[in-house]
Formats: sequence, structure tokens, C-alpha cells
Amino acid sequence: MPTRMAQEIAEQPAAVRRTLAALLPLRPVLAELFAGRHRVLFVARGSSDNAAIYGRYLLETHAGVPGGLLSPSVATHYRSRLDLSDSVVVSVSQSGETEEIVATQAWARDCGAATVAVANVAGSSLARAADVALVTEAGRELAVPATKSYLAQLVAMAVLGTALAPEPTALDADLRRIADEVAGLLAEPSGIGEAVAALHTTAYTVVSGRGLLMGTALETALKLEETCLRPVRGYSYADLRHGPISVVTDGMAAVLVAAPDGPLLSPMTELARDLAGRGATVVGIGGDEAFRMACAVPVRGPALPEKLAPLGTIVPAQLVVEGLARALGLDPDAPRGLAKVTRTDPIHTGGDTR
Amino acid sequence: MPTRMAQEIAEQPAAVRRTLAALLPLRPVLAELFAGRHRVLFVARGSSDNAAIYGRYLLETHAGVPGGLLSPSVATHYRSRLDLSDSVVVSVSQSGETEEIVATQAWARDCGAATVAVANVAGSSLARAADVALVTEAGRELAVPATKSYLAQLVAMAVLGTALAPEPTALDADLRRIADEVAGLLAEPSGIGEAVAALHTTAYTVVSGRGLLMGTALETALKLEETCLRPVRGYSYADLRHGPISVVTDGMAAVLVAAPDGPLLSPMTELARDLAGRGATVVGIGGDEAFRMACAVPVRGPALPEKLAPLGTIVPAQLVVEGLARALGLDPDAPRGLAKVTRTDPIHTGGDTR
Repeated sequence: MPTRMAQEIAEQPAAVRRTLAALLPLRPVLAELFAGRHRVLFVARGSSDNAAIYGRYLLETHAGVPGGLLSPSVATHYRSRLDLSDSVVVSVSQSGETEEIVATQAWARDCGAATVAVANVAGSSLARAADVALVTEAGRELAVPATKSYLAQLVAMAVLGTALAPEPTALDADLRRIADEVAGLLAEPSGIGEAVAALHTTAYTVVSGRGLLMGTALETALKLEETCLRPVRGYSYADLRHGPISVVTDGMAAVLVAAPDGPLLSPMTELARDLAGRGATVVGIGGDEAFRMACAVPVRGPALPEKLAPLGTIVPAQLVVEGLARALGLDPDAPRGLAKVTRTDPIHTGGDTR
Repeated sequence: MPTRMAQEIAEQPAAVRRTLAALLPLRPVLAELFAGRHRVLFVARGSSDNAAIYGRYLLETHAGVPGGLLSPSVATHYRSRLDLSDSVVVSVSQSGETEEIVATQAWARDCGAATVAVANVAGSSLARAADVALVTEAGRELAVPATKSYLAQLVAMAVLGTALAPEPTALDADLRRIADEVAGLLAEPSGIGEAVAALHTTAYTVVSGRGLLMGTALETALKLEETCLRPVRGYSYADLRHGPISVVTDGMAAVLVAAPDGPLLSPMTELARDLAGRGATVVGIGGDEAFRMACAVPVRGPALPEKLAPLGTIVPAQLVVEGLARALGLDPDAPRGLAKVTRTDPIHTGGDTR
């Protein structure tokens, strides 16, 4: 009997197809909402935040639109007034009910921003209050670790990032291949068992990626941490090289995520060699042949260009996490101490915590 | 014979005084540079990035100016063109020679931004190329872990954050007390040895703070990681509560940093109780009496209001890191594998890594 998490991972090709069909027609609405504004700011936590990080890189590298991430505490605790009339604020929450995200969206509107909600529940507070709701069609998610809802959020980010680009349809041929790529990665995974074995025995794991794949690295780290209860750390490779690489020693595991092309593939391959030289067992998800050669444990990733690679690369990472949780005797569907709708403040949100 | 790191920690009152004297007169220049622009974006890595995170919160909560952090790879690897004509871009680097920061500042200028450099070396590439250079007066720093140069960067952030506020001099009485507060924390530290003992025996440490003290938490985590070679993770308490808190178990250590006032003090105190309830040994730096009561190991912090508390709170954290490194038999002045001027790409920066 597969776990719910495994079932929901398997439902992703359908989730991608449904979400693309629902959201692609909204491109003109998004372009109209953005008209006259200059930047897109995201509000999110956890997996949704990792999806937003991809959204920001896609906007900046593909659409030429400056992006950023808002800090909810500025809204909910400090109650600052900022002029956001030049911005579209995109709030991302699977349930659409995370109170601090709902409160921050309301604050952003008061500050003059146009608002877009990305939620998996059509009638949710977040979706109802937004100027434009991008309702993802992942279907109800029962396992606590977000899998299909996260991938559906990435689809929403791809729709947004292309909607604001000079040529909105330029990536459409590849967008339409994603569901099949994901299905292929599920039907013929490669390297998953080896990766689980490599991660099983290590006390501390470092995860790294950069640029468009940075969110994938952080999401992989978060999943390992929450679902497998492993101390793990996700880094931009630049931040890792800046200093913390000094903690990497014999017997440590490193998970690197890379696209099969793009300007960061070669430095990611160098990083794999460097980490291996320091004694780490390097699990490499995705990349090209040279990257796989540099990794002790290569895991098959998608044949998608870097701008869309995050939508496939997370899938083998999910399979590794689900397998590792079971190998550790944990229940991937209900990790210790986590609830499906999260709250970040103990007392009452809206933010008055004094 | 004290370590160089200990000597440089002790030089901080003088570094604060010199830097304030050098930079406070530049407030009108900063205000003029900002006139007609709408936001401030930071570019930095490592400790400088942690200083920038404080700068951003101060701008948003005190000056009412939207802030953000730029991703260097968008400039150096993707070579995107963004319209940044509404922005002042502040680049932060101790040496002023970190190549990707220098390259990103040049890119930001090409994108229409006004530029401010925060560097500890007057004739550095970063300082020479900027519209306005905020040259910190920490003096030459020889130990690899940044201490006095980091605190001097925080002073620069406080000057910037107040320069763009409606009443630039509103915090001046407290600003002028900082050097004495730091001197007091150095002359009569409290709880340092107990904190070193608590951290000595744990395999994994979590560090948390939020809002204006978020950068302090991340800097404390980075220092523990780089100088003490400990696996450690810095979180916003909101992100910690969102999920990763589930990895906190018996025998783990948690370091919390808090200001003695402000809207996040009460939730930080709740977090201390929660972590203690999960079996963690909680080291609490700063806060008020209730916060200290909630922490197994309270460490004395500064009597400074939240908006300036980061300039004092980092000092006991530095003392803990320096003491822990020695207790572990490590050389705090030259941690394994780190150089003083960092480079994030192996080949050549400016960014063409293909």
C-alpha cells in the first residue's frame, strides 16, 4: 500500500495538465493587471516561498521584470506603511488560509499594490480577496508534505513569468511537455534507491543549487528536514562557497540540483567536484552528462530547459524524500509536529502579538 | 595572548565611534541621492548580507522605504536587463573587492540605479565606482571571521536608514550610546561561559530571530558555522514554526536573539518556552526579564531599542563564537578553508563561467 505522499507524487502529471489548462487563459488578465506597474513582490512561507523564489528568478531572467520577496512581519507586526503602488503583490498559500499571508495581502492592497493570489482552494480567503486568483488544480492534498500542490504552484509561477514577458507564448512548446516529462520521471526513475542509501547513513546533509534552481534546492532541503527530520541546510552555491563549505567533511552528504543547460550548469559541476574532493558523497539531481560524471550518485532529472527545469527536477527529489522517510521508519504522510495549515504565531495572527 | 578575533571584538567601541563620526555627516548626501527614487535594494554575501538584511528592515520599519535584496546571479550569470531607475542599490563588501559584488554594482548602474557602496577600504573598487561611498572605519581586520567590520556595516545601515526617514535625527541619542553599550557588554559580559558550555556538547544547533533581529540571528548562525565548524541553521522564527521546528528534539541547542522591546519580543519569549518544552537547551541573547526567564542560558544583551539593538546584540554572540572555537580546539582567527576576500565562482567572476 503506497503512502499518501507517494500517491500524490504520482498524481502530478494530471495536476500539471489541469493547472496549465486553468491558468494559461489568464495570461492577458495578468498582463493587464501589471500594466503601468514595475515590479512583482511575493509573499509566502515554506514550500510556497520556495515556489515564489522560482517565480522571482523567472520574472527577472525571462520577463525582464524586477521581483522581490516581502517580509510578512513588516506588515503583521511592525504595521509599516510602504508605497507599493508600483507593484503587483503575489501571495502564495496552498490552503489560501494561512493567516499571516492573508493579512499581508490585505496590507499590500492598503499600500497600493495590485494583488494576485496563488492558492489551491478556489473559495479560500486569499483567493476571494485578490484582484486576480490563480487557483491551482492539484486536487485535495492529504499528506502533510506538499508535493503536487507545490508543483502546481510552480506551474502558476511559469504562467505568471511568461504572461509578463515580451513574448508570452515563447516557452509554450516546453510548457506543454512538462506533464509528460514528469510522467516519464515517475515511470522510469533512476538513482532514487542509491540516493536514499547515501542519505540514510549521514548525520548532516547540505543541499545546493543556484539561480532558477535555487528554489528547488531550498524545497529539497525543507522536505528532507520536515519529512525525514534530518538536520539539513539549503544554500545557494555562492553562499556555500562564501564560507560554510568549510563544514563539509568526510562522510557528509551533499545534494546538488542542476538544470541540463544554462549558465550555472558548469559552476554546479565544479561544485560537485569540489565537494567530492572534500570527502562528501555527492547526490546530483538533473544536470548533463558532465554533471552526472562529477556526482557519486546521479539521479535522473528532466529534459527541460533551465527556465522550466524546476518543474521536473523536484520530482526525483520528492521520490528520494519519500523513500528516505520510509527507510528511516518514519511516516511520510504525517511528520512529527506538523499541521497542514500552518500558523507562525502562537497567539493570534493579524499580528497583534503583544 | 588573546586571539586576533578577540582583539578585534574588543576594538568595536572605537570602530563604532569612528564610523559614526565619518558617516553621520553624509546623511544629506544620501537623502539627495534617494530623491525621486522609491526603493533601496541591497547586494551582498555572507556577513555583509546579514548586515544588509538589518538595513532593509530598518528602512521598511523606520523610514517607510521599501527595500529588497538583489540576486547577483541575475546580473553576473543571466545578464538580465532590469529597469532599476526607481532604485538606489547599496552594495556591501568589507574588502570592497568581492568580484561578483563589484560586477553587480556595475550592472545595477547600467540598469539605471543610483549606487551606494559600503566598504571598509576607501580606495577599493566598490567604493571608487559608487555614486556615494560609505567607507566604514573599522580599521584593518586580520582575523578571517568578520566582527568589527560587520558592526561597522551595521552602523552604516543605521546611518542610511535614518538618513531616508522623515526625521533623520530621531534616533541620534540612542545612536550615540551604542559605543558605550558595546563597551559595557565587553567589560561585564554575562552568560558567555555558560553558553559556550551548552553549545559545546550538542551536535546540531538552531538559531532564530525575527524582523529587525533576523540579520543578527543569521550572522550568529554563520559565525558558528564558519568559525566553530558546527552544523547550524539560522531561521526566522516564523519559518522555524512553519515546519522545521519538528527537527528540534532532546539535547539540541537553540540560540535565540531578541531585542529588549518591540512587537516580536513576546513571540520570541513564547518560542523560547516552546523549544524548551521540546527538550532543547535554549541560549537566549538579549530580550527582557521574561525572555531571560524562559531561556535556560540567558546571555546579557544591550539596553538599546529594537531599531538599534542589532548593533549591540551581535557582540555577546561574537564572544560565544570565539570562546566556543577555542573550547573546541580550533583557531578562531583562521578557520579551515576560508579566505578573507571570498570568491563565489571557481573560474573567473564578472560572471562568464561557461
